[in-house]
Amino acid sequence: MEYQVKAYITLKPGILDIQGETIKGALHSLGYLEVEKVHSGKFLKLKIAADNLKTAKERAAKMGEELLANPIIEDYKFEVKEGN
Amino acid sequence: MEYQVKAYITLKPGILDIQGETIKGALHSLGYLEVEKVHSGKFLKLKIAADNLKTAKERAAKMGEELLANPIIEDYKFEVKEGN
Repeated sequence: MEYQVKAYITLKPGILDIQGETIKGALHSLGYLEVEKVHSGKFLKLKIAADNLKTAKERAAKMGEELLANPIIEDYKFEVKEGN
Repeated sequence: MEYQVKAYITLKPGILDIQGETIKGALHSLGYLEVEKVHSGKFLKLKIAADNLKTAKERAAKMGEELLANPIIEDYKFEVKEGN
């Protein structure tokens, strides 16, 4: 079976988010003064093969821990659904 | 009122996704051979002030067009909800 994994990697609270601050500054300079905070992160969409949804979720969790996110400074969240 | 915007920026189909290919290669070398495709992108969470949900959505759409995404090579999707 094929599964689609959507993974969201964000900096943990308290870790300085330089990219987010830079984007906020750029939005302000363009006149978007209503922007109070920008939190930047990564978004990944994976297509994986697995026997069932449970296995797909377990593998997606392991990939996050092992490679996709740095658990010291980043949070890793993901969703898995059947299909492409 | 305060609104939370979640923005997802991904490369358009057909644009070479070097980061995604690199991640796929790294996952394969770690033994995750079931990974068939990796599509990489950016994820942003913004806190913005707006009078109402309609205005918040309009502003979020404009920010995407003007700064957050490059409309020539990237797709920009977002969700807006009330609260932090």
